[in-house]
Amino acid sequence: MLLKRTHTCGELTKGQVGEAVVLNGWVDAWRDFGGLVFIDLRDRYGVTQVVFEPDAGAELQARARDLRNEYVVGVKGTVAPRLAGKENPRLKTGEVEVRATDFVLYNATPTPPFEIGGPEPNEELRLKYRFLDLRRPSIQRVFLLRHELTQLMRNVMSEQGFLDVETPILGRSTPEGARDFLVPSRVHASHFYALPQSPQLYKQLLMVSGFDRYFQIARCFRDEDLRANRQPEFTQLDVEMSFVEDHDVMSTMEGLIAAMAQRFTGETLMLPLPRLEYHDVVERFGSDRPDLRYGLELKDLADVAAQTDFKVLKQAAELGHRVRGFCAPGGAEKYSRKDLDGLTEFAGTFGAKGLVWLKVEAEGFAGPTAKFFPSPAQAALRERFDAKAGDLILIVADTQAVTNQALSNLRARLATELKLYDPKSFHYSWVIHFPLLAWDAEENRYVAEHHPFTMPMFEDLALLDSDPAKVRAQAYDLVINGEEAGGGTIRCHDPAIQSKIFALLGLSPEQAEEKFGFLLSALRNGAPPHGGIALGVDRLVMLYAGITNIRDCIAFPKTAKGTDLMTGAPGTVEPRQLKELHIRPS
Amino acid sequence: MLLKRTHTCGELTKGQVGEAVVLNGWVDAWRDFGGLVFIDLRDRYGVTQVVFEPDAGAELQARARDLRNEYVVGVKGTVAPRLAGKENPRLKTGEVEVRATDFVLYNATPTPPFEIGGPEPNEELRLKYRFLDLRRPSIQRVFLLRHELTQLMRNVMSEQGFLDVETPILGRSTPEGARDFLVPSRVHASHFYALPQSPQLYKQLLMVSGFDRYFQIARCFRDEDLRANRQPEFTQLDVEMSFVEDHDVMSTMEGLIAAMAQRFTGETLMLPLPRLEYHDVVERFGSDRPDLRYGLELKDLADVAAQTDFKVLKQAAELGHRVRGFCAPGGAEKYSRKDLDGLTEFAGTFGAKGLVWLKVEAEGFAGPTAKFFPSPAQAALRERFDAKAGDLILIVADTQAVTNQALSNLRARLATELKLYDPKSFHYSWVIHFPLLAWDAEENRYVAEHHPFTMPMFEDLALLDSDPAKVRAQAYDLVINGEEAGGGTIRCHDPAIQSKIFALLGLSPEQAEEKFGFLLSALRNGAPPHGGIALGVDRLVMLYAGITNIRDCIAFPKTAKGTDLMTGAPGTVEPRQLKELHIRPS
Repeated sequence: MLLKRTHTCGELTKGQVGEAVVLNGWVDAWRDFGGLVFIDLRDRYGVTQVVFEPDAGAELQARARDLRNEYVVGVKGTVAPRLAGKENPRLKTGEVEVRATDFVLYNATPTPPFEIGGPEPNEELRLKYRFLDLRRPSIQRVFLLRHELTQLMRNVMSEQGFLDVETPILGRSTPEGARDFLVPSRVHASHFYALPQSPQLYKQLLMVSGFDRYFQIARCFRDEDLRANRQPEFTQLDVEMSFVEDHDVMSTMEGLIAAMAQRFTGETLMLPLPRLEYHDVVERFGSDRPDLRYGLELKDLADVAAQTDFKVLKQAAELGHRVRGFCAPGGAEKYSRKDLDGLTEFAGTFGAKGLVWLKVEAEGFAGPTAKFFPSPAQAALRERFDAKAGDLILIVADTQAVTNQALSNLRARLATELKLYDPKSFHYSWVIHFPLLAWDAEENRYVAEHHPFTMPMFEDLALLDSDPAKVRAQAYDLVINGEEAGGGTIRCHDPAIQSKIFALLGLSPEQAEEKFGFLLSALRNGAPPHGGIALGVDRLVMLYAGITNIRDCIAFPKTAKGTDLMTGAPGTVEPRQLKELHIRPS
Repeated sequence: MLLKRTHTCGELTKGQVGEAVVLNGWVDAWRDFGGLVFIDLRDRYGVTQVVFEPDAGAELQARARDLRNEYVVGVKGTVAPRLAGKENPRLKTGEVEVRATDFVLYNATPTPPFEIGGPEPNEELRLKYRFLDLRRPSIQRVFLLRHELTQLMRNVMSEQGFLDVETPILGRSTPEGARDFLVPSRVHASHFYALPQSPQLYKQLLMVSGFDRYFQIARCFRDEDLRANRQPEFTQLDVEMSFVEDHDVMSTMEGLIAAMAQRFTGETLMLPLPRLEYHDVVERFGSDRPDLRYGLELKDLADVAAQTDFKVLKQAAELGHRVRGFCAPGGAEKYSRKDLDGLTEFAGTFGAKGLVWLKVEAEGFAGPTAKFFPSPAQAALRERFDAKAGDLILIVADTQAVTNQALSNLRARLATELKLYDPKSFHYSWVIHFPLLAWDAEENRYVAEHHPFTMPMFEDLALLDSDPAKVRAQAYDLVINGEEAGGGTIRCHDPAIQSKIFALLGLSPEQAEEKFGFLLSALRNGAPPHGGIALGVDRLVMLYAGITNIRDCIAFPKTAKGTDLMTGAPGTVEPRQLKELHIRPS
């Protein structure tokens, strides 16, 4: 019943002319043309043209005439050159065709709900018929890349002595962090497993065990409201190392990053990658994950503001506000008055109550607020930004947080609209020394900026008592093209420091023991200095595949409401199942 | 604070004598001896002796004197040859020691609850302090092997064009099969995800999508009562291929199996591996996963039974019972009368109401039932088993099922006790052509022998209507040393056959559509012929590591009650968490 294939549909060239071959695949297109029946046969590897000639017999031709798109067939035939002028240079197999001598129909199909080679169907249809959507070559290409990426990760890590260790999916709920998915226990009534938000504690325990170097491509789970590019389950390359400092982790990972860049972009990276202080990048770019493919650096303009006659700017200092801005080369011409109103509105979505814009001219500035800038202020601005005629200066006066938000987003928008960078280019950097803690006004306590297991910078240890918000963490984020592609920290291996941090996070010693007793016990039983990192696999696939929808890099993704439109998960279950789990609907 | 290591503790030899080095690790042993303080420093890679000499200074020696087992330290020093006669040939580093010039204490510890290098502690203690248990070199060795095994699997599969595709952990409950773990949905009240028992349906859908060759080292979940060697989550190498028949899957996997054998046992396998018909192996060995490292083949003795004067044997035919037995070479001397009573009792635990034993002598048989065997019967037995003086013949008369159970277990026991094989040897074979269906008297319907998606053998298709129990499946199990190391089938790619099988399993068309609608839809939309297999990763690790407890090959295992003694999972959760999930205790 099966015609065993001799070649894939992406393989035959003139070198095989005259050979008897068998191909298997899907009918990608068919045409009945001048007494000949043509089909394009498709598989994961490519497309090959098959022709049923009159010589092959009337019965075979008749059967071939009944083939339709997406029928699954096996074809036996002989490789022949295409007629002169009929070659298809876009296909690897475009110089040849297979002259069929027989075929088997494995499965017929009704007309599919959308055409595989056609325009992209709407997402609901794509997800409901995911098994058809995944037939589209543009999607398959992403999964080939994903496969190659994870293989590369595993091989590079393995070569460096890291051991792949599996950690449990059925774990314990640790409410510090995002919301857990829970799994009721059948054996222990009213007890629940939790799906891991990451293997963080397990990998630290492996360091305590002396595994020395661990990695895992790990599935992680967060039961959070799904924003556009979030999924309830996601995948990370999880790494931990013993007897290291932050720079050791970064330089180890740079080997992998360089290998990824080489493989997926052809670029040879200069190592080490830039390592940028958190406080600097936030000051210079308004964000802790700046896109550094372009400049548009922010400048503090407090001194200039003081020289203007512009009330909003002049008063900023009194309010404790910042006055900051950047200069977009060539922006003056590109942005009309109406466009600039659009930018002002855009800045408003990030809380900015206004946007000051100035078009730099050969002499002086243009714009409704230019008149508030006396000559010395204009000169200062020109000098600060090295501004030239035709540039556009944008200024926001507001709180630190609002100027960060508004200006970093304006920066990204203008860079794109002014085409200040090659969107296919890549820029990699580390952002280091994040704050350890952030004050949560709502909960009236500190929360961990990364996670509660992060080691403070040693020179800041004394500040834990005097000014915890000032303590910097031994933390490092990998930023690629303005996206956080990964992040890690050196961990607290000292149980006393770890306990002190738990206290700052509002946990009493009893609560800390109740929630994290096993970690504290492990730290007390001979924990080595250790640290690690996690890289977002989904995000890296998106970056290297040049896609923006996370659902395109996950084989069977869920909607924003957490539904799998194909299987119908989550679904209802039988009452017996709930009874066994000692739960009922509330 | 960190002394950056220059070498691991398993690395230094005479080649490094005179070099300044830094080692990091755990104190494995210490002794204060004749004015010298010695410590053995241990890490994942080995153990190195460090000596603190008086030259190093009184203060350093004094600090070193305070070191105790499992303290974590970094040591700076110089490599020196050990004193003549003090070498330790069992250690790679045994010819040298490091003369310490400085050290840093990273973490002290109280006396650990058990000694890392000491006798194996009880399992409860091991699991509670898993982070210490995993320090034991005998355990770490298993995880190194596990890492190498999964790396090998991924690389071999990848080289053969298989793509690693991740499938969801949050799936839909499909009650056909084992019991599901459920995950309540927060967004959809009274709806539940289920953790996958295997990626079976997803991988079939990937074939429908044209992925052609898929693999994944996949986590699977079954909420079943845990027998000794079961865990609620386990790991399998999951594989699926399109346009293949059963022998294609087997021969593809044999490439991997040969690579595993080469890597972990040094053996070059002869391929193809033996492929044994299910009915034959059950007849010959009483089991569908026989250990073929030894013979002890079962023989049918119905004709001999008829020639005896032994009522139990003579009547077997009337009752529809089987009379079967095997002959253990050299067993007569090894088993005393008391031992044979023990074997009879052992057979009884498998339902056998008796065990006939005969000791073969130069002339005639010895044993209390020998007298019931007249000469022709004795001659027939001798010939059937090619029996020699000193052999032991064991016979059971009972139902097919009981003779299978009793004799296959007796066979395994005698082979071990008589040392008929090298326990370090490996034997690989395929058992093929299992029955498709088994009759479930309790549920009064057929159940799938493998799973409901298996393709019948084409020559048996007609039997689906006339005699379903006789239908053989396109199924194949990999058997290693009497363990089922993996199993797979060719799948139903024909929606009509799949529907017919669902009907035989007792599903109405509506139920089939409700439960497996997406699969049927996929089959109708152009499914290729396809099939696959899953290999049990945990079991392979156990086989190659020579361990018998599955908990020794899982980093953070659960007890037979599904508890993680270290973290306390499953644990209680806050009422708020349950409320968000729309459930409450019942």
